[in-house]
Amino acid sequence: MLVCSRCGRKYPEDFRLTCECGGTLTVARELPADFSGGLRNYPDMRRYLAFIPVSEEHLPRLVPSITPVSRLKVNGVTALFKLEYLQPTGSFKDRGTYVTVAKLKGESITEVVLDSSGNAAISLAAFSRMEGIRAHLFVPEHTSPGKLALLRRLGAELHVVEGDRMAVHREAVSFSKEKGIAYVSHWLNPYFLEGTKVAALEAYEQAGVPDYVISPAGSGTLFLGLWKGFSELRSMGEIDELPTFVAVQAEGYESLCERSTRKSHLAEGIAITEPPRLEEMEAVLDETGGTCVSVGDPGIERALRWLWERGFPVEPTSATVLAALWELRKRSFIRSGSSVLLPLTGSGLKGVEGI
Amino acid sequence: MLVCSRCGRKYPEDFRLTCECGGTLTVARELPADFSGGLRNYPDMRRYLAFIPVSEEHLPRLVPSITPVSRLKVNGVTALFKLEYLQPTGSFKDRGTYVTVAKLKGESITEVVLDSSGNAAISLAAFSRMEGIRAHLFVPEHTSPGKLALLRRLGAELHVVEGDRMAVHREAVSFSKEKGIAYVSHWLNPYFLEGTKVAALEAYEQAGVPDYVISPAGSGTLFLGLWKGFSELRSMGEIDELPTFVAVQAEGYESLCERSTRKSHLAEGIAITEPPRLEEMEAVLDETGGTCVSVGDPGIERALRWLWERGFPVEPTSATVLAALWELRKRSFIRSGSSVLLPLTGSGLKGVEGI
Repeated sequence: MLVCSRCGRKYPEDFRLTCECGGTLTVARELPADFSGGLRNYPDMRRYLAFIPVSEEHLPRLVPSITPVSRLKVNGVTALFKLEYLQPTGSFKDRGTYVTVAKLKGESITEVVLDSSGNAAISLAAFSRMEGIRAHLFVPEHTSPGKLALLRRLGAELHVVEGDRMAVHREAVSFSKEKGIAYVSHWLNPYFLEGTKVAALEAYEQAGVPDYVISPAGSGTLFLGLWKGFSELRSMGEIDELPTFVAVQAEGYESLCERSTRKSHLAEGIAITEPPRLEEMEAVLDETGGTCVSVGDPGIERALRWLWERGFPVEPTSATVLAALWELRKRSFIRSGSSVLLPLTGSGLKGVEGI
Repeated sequence: MLVCSRCGRKYPEDFRLTCECGGTLTVARELPADFSGGLRNYPDMRRYLAFIPVSEEHLPRLVPSITPVSRLKVNGVTALFKLEYLQPTGSFKDRGTYVTVAKLKGESITEVVLDSSGNAAISLAAFSRMEGIRAHLFVPEHTSPGKLALLRRLGAELHVVEGDRMAVHREAVSFSKEKGIAYVSHWLNPYFLEGTKVAALEAYEQAGVPDYVISPAGSGTLFLGLWKGFSELRSMGEIDELPTFVAVQAEGYESLCERSTRKSHLAEGIAITEPPRLEEMEAVLDETGGTCVSVGDPGIERALRWLWERGFPVEPTSATVLAALWELRKRSFIRSGSSVLLPLTGSGLKGVEGI
C-alpha cells in the first residue's frame, strides 16, 4: 500500500503521487522474511525483484546494472565509491525509472509528463519508448547542450522551458492538468524510491553497512531511496543499525542547510530549492544523527578534477559528495578509520564540452 | 603460459606481445575443474577471477561491471543485446584494460605506450593513473572531439597523430622503441583477450549458449575474446558446442571480407585494415561455420537510429552488429527463431556532438 508521510492515510498500490492532504507518499508492504532468501539469481537489478512492488511481466526490456564499488583511502577513511553512473543512460535515475515504467505498464498508462534537470528525462526517454509509453519531457533551457542533444536523439518529446528548475516544475504540472495526461514527477512518485533503494541493497551486499552515507540531496530521490533500502534491511532483521546519513546540497539552493548567498552553477542536478519530500529528509537526518553539508563551485571543481584523474568520469553534481567528505573530515564530523558510502550519481560523458 | 598462434612456441606468463617468429600469443593455462565451482561471490567482473591470469592483489581499484543483457525480438530472432558500453569508461575495452593493468602491476611496469582509435586509450587513461602507471596514448587526429576532450580531462599524456589508424600504430611503435618504454598494444597483448573473454562467461550465465555471436571484428580483441570465453566453457565441460561466430567489418577496411571500394566513416572503432590476429579470426570462422559481413554507413546509420530510439545510446561502431543481423536475416544465413548475442561495444554519450 501507499502511506502518506504527513497524515498517515493509506491508499492501495496504484500509481498516485500525493495524498489528498497534499502530503507525499511512500510504499509500505510486507517484505520477504529474510533478505538472502529473497534474492534472485540475476546478475542485474532484477536480483532484488522480491523487494520491489512490480510484477516481473511488466519489467522493461532495458535492465539496470548492479553497479561496482571502488574502494579507496581518502583522508584517513575508506571511501566506497558506488558507480551509479554506469547505468543504461548514465545515471542512478535509471533505477527509479525502471520501477516506474513497470508500474505504468501494469496500470496500462501510455502517456506521461515529467520535468527534470536532464538526467531523469534522459532516463525516461530511454526506458519508455520501447515499452509503448509516450513521454512529454520538460527541461530547463540551461540544461547542458550534451544532454539536450542526447534527448533529441532518443526521440523524446521535448519541452524546453525558460526560467529556473521550479519554473520547469510548474510548467509541467500545468501542461499535465490542461491535457489530462498523468504527471509522473520523480520528486513525488513513490515508486521511484523503490528503484533507488536498490542501490543500498547492493551496497550492503558489496561492502556491508558503512558508517556513513554521503548522498546528494536535491529532491531527495537518491538520499531517501538509500535510507529506505537500509531501513528495510533493518526491518528484515538483516542489519542492526543504520549508517549516519549526510545530505549534500549546493550553495544557493539549500533546503536542509542554511541558504547561502553564493550560488553554485555546477551542481545542476541538485539545484532544487523547494523539494516536496523535505520533511522526510529532515527525519532521516534526525533518526541517524546525520547532518547537512552545503558545497560551492570551487570545492566541486576540485573534487571533480580529483575524480576524473583517478578514472571516474562523472558529472559535477556527482563530485559534491567528495567535496562534502573533505569538509566533514576537516570538521571532524566523520571519524578517522570509518567507512563512507559515496554514490557517484551521473556520467560526465554526457556533457564533456559543457563542463 | 603464452603460446604462439603461428609456430606453437611456449613462453612463461610474462608481459610479452609477440613470439620471436613474429606470431601472436595467447594465454593457455589450466582452468578450474568446473565452471560453477570457479565462480566467486562478487557482483562485478571479479566473479570470474579464477579464469583470469592475474593475482587479486594486483587488481585495479576501478572494477568493470557485469553488463546487463536486453532481450528483444528482431526480425524473427531473439536478439540478446549485451550492454558492454556500461563499463567504467563506456566501452568493452575496460575488461581488457583491467586485466592488462593488473598484469603490469604484477610485473612492476610503470610506464607504457598504447595506440588506439579512442576507446582503448580512454580506458587505459582511466585505469592506469590511479595504479601508478604512466601511459603515453597515441590517437588519430580524426578521433571525435568528445573523445579527445575526455582524454584530456582524464589527465592523459596524449599524442595526436596525423594519418589513418595504421599510421598511428607505426608512430606508437617507433616512440616505444626510441624511448625504451613498454608497448602494450591491445591488438597484440594476450592479456587483453583474457579480459574480453569474460563477456562470454557472463553472457553464458545470463542467457546460455546463443546460436550465433555477432561481433565487430577490427583488431579482433572482442571477437577473439568472445570465442575464447565460449571455448574455455567447452574445455571445462560446461557446454558442448560453440555458437556460430559472425565477424562484422566496415566497408573499405575489410580484412576478412572482400575489400569494398566504398569507405565507412562511421565505424571508427573497426577501421583497421591489417589486424595482426587476422589468421586467428579466420580460424574462428572456419571452426564455427561462421561468416564475415561488411557494413556501410547507410546501414550503420539506420541501425544506430533504431538502437537510440529503443533506449540504447551507443556509438556508431556498436550499431554495426545490428546492421549485420538485418543483412544475415535477409540472406537467410541466420535462421528464424534462433538466438543471437550482440555485444553493444561503446557508449554514444562520449561524442553526442560528433555523431
